[in-house]
Amino acid sequence: MWGIVLKPVKVGICGLGTVGSGTFNILRHNAEEITRRVGRSIVVEQIGARQVNPTCDTTDIDMTSDIFDVANNPEIDIVIELIGGTTVARELVLTAVENGKHVVTANKALIAEHGNEIFAKAQEKGVMVAFEAAVAGGIPIIKTLREGLSSNKIEWLAGIINGTGNFIMTEMSEKGRAFADVLKEAQELGYAEADPTFDVEGIDAAHKLTILASIAYGIPLQFEKTYTEGISRITAQDVAFARELGYSIKHLGIARRTKAGVELRVHPTLISQKALLANVNGVMNAVMVKGDAVGPTLTYGAGAGAMPTGSSVVADIIDVARTLTADPTNRVPHLAFQPEQLSDLDVLAMEDVECGFFLNMMVQDRAGVLANITQILSNNGISIESVIQREGSDLVPLVVMTHDVKERNMNAAIAAIEALPDVAGTVQRIRVENLA
Amino acid sequence: MWGIVLKPVKVGICGLGTVGSGTFNILRHNAEEITRRVGRSIVVEQIGARQVNPTCDTTDIDMTSDIFDVANNPEIDIVIELIGGTTVARELVLTAVENGKHVVTANKALIAEHGNEIFAKAQEKGVMVAFEAAVAGGIPIIKTLREGLSSNKIEWLAGIINGTGNFIMTEMSEKGRAFADVLKEAQELGYAEADPTFDVEGIDAAHKLTILASIAYGIPLQFEKTYTEGISRITAQDVAFARELGYSIKHLGIARRTKAGVELRVHPTLISQKALLANVNGVMNAVMVKGDAVGPTLTYGAGAGAMPTGSSVVADIIDVARTLTADPTNRVPHLAFQPEQLSDLDVLAMEDVECGFFLNMMVQDRAGVLANITQILSNNGISIESVIQREGSDLVPLVVMTHDVKERNMNAAIAAIEALPDVAGTVQRIRVENLA
Repeated sequence: MWGIVLKPVKVGICGLGTVGSGTFNILRHNAEEITRRVGRSIVVEQIGARQVNPTCDTTDIDMTSDIFDVANNPEIDIVIELIGGTTVARELVLTAVENGKHVVTANKALIAEHGNEIFAKAQEKGVMVAFEAAVAGGIPIIKTLREGLSSNKIEWLAGIINGTGNFIMTEMSEKGRAFADVLKEAQELGYAEADPTFDVEGIDAAHKLTILASIAYGIPLQFEKTYTEGISRITAQDVAFARELGYSIKHLGIARRTKAGVELRVHPTLISQKALLANVNGVMNAVMVKGDAVGPTLTYGAGAGAMPTGSSVVADIIDVARTLTADPTNRVPHLAFQPEQLSDLDVLAMEDVECGFFLNMMVQDRAGVLANITQILSNNGISIESVIQREGSDLVPLVVMTHDVKERNMNAAIAAIEALPDVAGTVQRIRVENLA
Repeated sequence: MWGIVLKPVKVGICGLGTVGSGTFNILRHNAEEITRRVGRSIVVEQIGARQVNPTCDTTDIDMTSDIFDVANNPEIDIVIELIGGTTVARELVLTAVENGKHVVTANKALIAEHGNEIFAKAQEKGVMVAFEAAVAGGIPIIKTLREGLSSNKIEWLAGIINGTGNFIMTEMSEKGRAFADVLKEAQELGYAEADPTFDVEGIDAAHKLTILASIAYGIPLQFEKTYTEGISRITAQDVAFARELGYSIKHLGIARRTKAGVELRVHPTLISQKALLANVNGVMNAVMVKGDAVGPTLTYGAGAGAMPTGSSVVADIIDVARTLTADPTNRVPHLAFQPEQLSDLDVLAMEDVECGFFLNMMVQDRAGVLANITQILSNNGISIESVIQREGSDLVPLVVMTHDVKERNMNAAIAAIEALPDVAGTVQRIRVENLA
């Protein structure tokens, strides 16, 4: 049938939960098409999992409850790590690499927090650790950044990279619902965990952004330096005022290269309703990348789920299968740049980041209040783009949109505004980005 | 500086027009970053061009006016074909391949019309012919389809893959302008050629669609079987009625796999205004791909221009440089599937394609006209989704939106409708797609 018959590639799957089952079922259902592409078959040699998964027909598969059996199985070429977490997963991946096996993983926390160590060990052993599924599920954004846009200096990237958060922001925006109300529904629908902290406080997005920024700029993974702010404090009123001004609020991960260093930040962000990214709704993900040659690009797709995430895991398996015999020095480097060529470009402190701001506060409906506030902003070098003032009898909302300014200046201005007797409580601050 | 110092990769550029200059300038401006990625430098050894390009500093480059000098230069590893056209370009590429050189090209017509021959020769010689820049300029859609989504059975793809056409449709849609008026502006802006046939009649899009469909389904390139319809007959009235019904009209290339075969068609298409693709405006391109595992995806970016197209050419050069030493049997196949494994899945005749229709006609404002038309549609198995009827004194427009039906049935229905004495002139037919 083939000109040259290559022997099958043998993989071992560790973890048979959501992503594990998707991976297994794609390898099964699309086996013929995959073999037509790769020129050799990909065989599941062993699965390590605590229990069977009713969605997977594993009757003819060698099952083990000890995932380390898989990492130590001499028959296996590629170990697929889909157990999640960072402790046992780290040990499993390092064991597989130590044994000279290639690894495919969907584990964003593992790569963001232990990637530097894992890639160094993989480099030493001449094996690949592939992680397309770790960022934005089924979207091939790692491949796009590392290979598709490899001729570009990446200027910035901005992504909706947490589906749970985007579902919540979409519902709040389209239906005027409150955060807590939508979160409860997301939990009932299975989009959000019982403890939603990872998703709604931006930690999951920060893991993914850390990875994207490293391969965009060739810097080591620096999760601990990523500024992370969640969406739990966004109110229906913020969303309504933003809409009135022509903006949507999205929870974005943003990385930008400036002369002083790299910005790395996850926070709610006002973007123009006309931006393509503002029209990415529900649990879908999308990443914009601005390259110096290509200009702005966007890649959109499902950011989670068994089959979409499995799509990326299996694409990685195919990539690794194709590169098994390649000279390691010619493979695409783990972090896109040759390991000896990583940059020591600093990650900027948040105080040095510059962007526009949406400020929402409650003030006494009294003459001179707006004048005092604009004076404070002006004193801190901040110019105003627009204002929404509501009339009323007592406390009224006041919304101010500013031009770009350093976070440091805004911190000083907000402290001074909050000290004004006519301003009640704290000033809500949401950053504004012009993604063009 | 490096652990292992690899020798530079030497490329020869043929053609120094728009894309040639972008390619040259990216290789120059981003040389340091590219070397950090690849682990070796990429050197322009020779340029074949009839004249110098004022945007390129070629003072220290070996220039020749005979492009075949480049294809025959024993120093050169990769020949970059950017001369356009299909006659000399075919000869040039075949010469380079015959000489054992890898080729990178941005030439969609060449690949769509002569790709089968070129890839067979390249396969025989063990060299790569890379063509990312041939489809959708800077968007890495070839890589996304061939590698990023390699685990999927592709169900369908639909793209805005001609920037000139999209500029015209956007202007008609946003400003209610007439086709001829916008075309004239597009020519003045340099978006459209003096002879705009290739762009506005869909030939350029059909070249690109032919390529996309081959790598999506693993079928040989079959440009001659691609149904091609342009936008020159779309009126401002069509656009206005479509908008009233909640649709935008876009010029799409669509490929869909059905049990009976593959649909391959380029035509104006009504899509929901809420679809992400409907919000891709101006000269920008975007391609949606629906995979069985990943679900719907979209990739967006600049479809033309020196730097965006150069971005893809240089990304291909980097890919080829990385794969120079790889075993040819393990490289990504030209058409995504192993050459011995291409499918003989038929391309469907247009009569067998099924979709919804928007019909726009002028009728006498008289009782019974609509009843006659709906009767004809019903006789041909066509059900109606919505109708817009205008009142007037004499001839009035009538718009009918139908549910999905085979083109064969619609042809019969339209012939019968046009034969009605109360229907004036021809029935305008625009296909409707629900891209979800």
